[in-house]
Amino acid sequence: MREVAIVSAGMTPFGELWDASLRQLFADAALEALEGAGVDHLDAIYVGNMSGGQFVGQEHIGPLLAEQLGMSGVPAMRVESACASGGMALRAAWLDVASGQSDLVLAAGVEKMTDGADVTAVLATAADQETEVYHGVTFPGLYAMIARAHMESRGTSLEDMAWVSVKNHRHGALNPRAQYRKEITVDDVLGSSMVADPLRLLNCSPVSDGAAAVLLVPLARAREFTDRSIRIRGSGAATAPMALADRQDPAFLGAVRTSAERAYAMAGIRPSELDLAEVHDCFSIAEICCIEAMGLTDGCNPVQAARSGYTALGGTRPVNTSGGLKSKGHPVGATGVAQAIEIFEQLRGEAGDRQVEDAHLGATQNMGGSGASSVVHVFERV
Amino acid sequence: MREVAIVSAGMTPFGELWDASLRQLFADAALEALEGAGVDHLDAIYVGNMSGGQFVGQEHIGPLLAEQLGMSGVPAMRVESACASGGMALRAAWLDVASGQSDLVLAAGVEKMTDGADVTAVLATAADQETEVYHGVTFPGLYAMIARAHMESRGTSLEDMAWVSVKNHRHGALNPRAQYRKEITVDDVLGSSMVADPLRLLNCSPVSDGAAAVLLVPLARAREFTDRSIRIRGSGAATAPMALADRQDPAFLGAVRTSAERAYAMAGIRPSELDLAEVHDCFSIAEICCIEAMGLTDGCNPVQAARSGYTALGGTRPVNTSGGLKSKGHPVGATGVAQAIEIFEQLRGEAGDRQVEDAHLGATQNMGGSGASSVVHVFERV
Repeated sequence: MREVAIVSAGMTPFGELWDASLRQLFADAALEALEGAGVDHLDAIYVGNMSGGQFVGQEHIGPLLAEQLGMSGVPAMRVESACASGGMALRAAWLDVASGQSDLVLAAGVEKMTDGADVTAVLATAADQETEVYHGVTFPGLYAMIARAHMESRGTSLEDMAWVSVKNHRHGALNPRAQYRKEITVDDVLGSSMVADPLRLLNCSPVSDGAAAVLLVPLARAREFTDRSIRIRGSGAATAPMALADRQDPAFLGAVRTSAERAYAMAGIRPSELDLAEVHDCFSIAEICCIEAMGLTDGCNPVQAARSGYTALGGTRPVNTSGGLKSKGHPVGATGVAQAIEIFEQLRGEAGDRQVEDAHLGATQNMGGSGASSVVHVFERV
Repeated sequence: MREVAIVSAGMTPFGELWDASLRQLFADAALEALEGAGVDHLDAIYVGNMSGGQFVGQEHIGPLLAEQLGMSGVPAMRVESACASGGMALRAAWLDVASGQSDLVLAAGVEKMTDGADVTAVLATAADQETEVYHGVTFPGLYAMIARAHMESRGTSLEDMAWVSVKNHRHGALNPRAQYRKEITVDDVLGSSMVADPLRLLNCSPVSDGAAAVLLVPLARAREFTDRSIRIRGSGAATAPMALADRQDPAFLGAVRTSAERAYAMAGIRPSELDLAEVHDCFSIAEICCIEAMGLTDGCNPVQAARSGYTALGGTRPVNTSGGLKSKGHPVGATGVAQAIEIFEQLRGEAGDRQVEDAHLGATQNMGGSGASSVVHVFERV
């Protein structure tokens, strides 16, 4: 397999972007990525999108988006794995370049969620329709059950979870593209309105519009486009049972563990070598579960990693320096690609006020549903 | 890139399968494919599905279907490109094996359309929502416009189109898995109820449930699983403008032409070398447009290919020996994989009453929307 590098990136701000359509969001992000590399043609496009059909009545967005770039003709494929759609699009694009089939491949993600659809009901189609959704459960409800199980088995407290949101808002306040650029306190979280006990509003990532795109090329050609390319050193994907009831420990995210192990093995690294990571904090408890499953906090209890500063900017291993899904926003199909962009910028030393000093090796972890799918990538400064 | 082969296949009957769910249909097809190769594990699953979210309230079917096979853990990705979803899933699976990343990869497609959704409205989400669907057009309407343009520019007659349906029903009558196993006449077609002038009911493929799956492995390992593997000799994908109004000639399917040229180039063949092909006859006019764009009827006007017997069983180059979408049925996400299964069985000499004598080289062409995406594969008997 050929080595693959990311040479440029583009991303819209995340937020309630009522004046931009799905196709416009994509074009804004994609054109920024193409301009960054000085590229005016592509060999293929992969776009992560969870529910264009349900959110805005538009499936078949591959050719639509190719056309939007003025590139009708280019092979274009939509990839869907719920909230892991962006990460899986990145993986598909990586395979295309790695195989030798294509040289210039755009991996993008886009979601337009605020156009009036019943967002909670649409998102619920990422859970098991027959054994979970039929009985009325929603995603806040599923993660509330995960939180309860984690509190029961690991002694996790409401404050521990609140600290994840506090940390990520501190990071997001430094990110010009974040949906919520304001700091919050533990008391803010504990006093916010109840969504699904024990999860309150400020434990939950928001509903967002947005798009993100990165350009992949063979590492051997990367210097044609930039002198600061970032190598994709590992990619791992995995699945787990859809329904919480079918998992031995509902607080343990097996697909996250397996996908991370596969990515680490391909990269030939231990997680303790990572300088930073972006993980899937769709709810504050999810970040705790993910860093636990990924083994990101050697020598620190993952439950206390945010509170102790271990995963904060300036800590041992910063997690979600972008603000994470919580503060940056979570346009579901775009999230996995936006995570890669944060690591890309950090490893290039372009993260501004959020910069992790001398960042060399970073990882992203993007998750679908309540953890039934997960994809991890390891990136390295060349 | 590694050479890739198909070593086994599985497929449900196509039809109104009210007693089988989406997940059950997938499992039936996938298990048949796994059993055919004596395989009990996979490295990856790609599944084509257009609109699980809209049809049955279920997105995120990758992990759901992996679990249904008892294979939670295996990476599983849904691929969507409207009615070309199955063909694009096959292409993604091929890239995964060709890259060297995976050895045993299932390419599947599934759609459950008869559970009560407004099928015409759901299918319309494959057209351009802003410039076409908003104004009320449906897919029968779009293909009716294509038919009118073809009649105007190529002199195509209602009888020419009717002959496509007649031929494909003759073929489908010989296919145990076809939805409509009965022959029809030109008069039947011309006397059937009007759907969208000039297209009548028997010019249109039906609404169907069904699933199909094939197992891909490196060609170098194919003999471990079968002594009659079929090599994937070429794969080509392409896009075109979504809206008919944005195409220079609405009767010419540019993405079909380009995807075919790319597949032929990779395979190193001319279309005249093909012994048979499955093409995307979602409407009778579509088959005419597709064989025209693919150059399948050298020495014969594509408009008269069905009527003259050129594309019939026993003719020069049989097209849609399975019965095509018209007679076999069209569960949209499954169609592209089912096409590959017909060629797989023909090249292995297992097509029963539909067998094309001494078939050595075959192609599939699978299309999304009104032709905005297309994917072509070339298969060869090893």
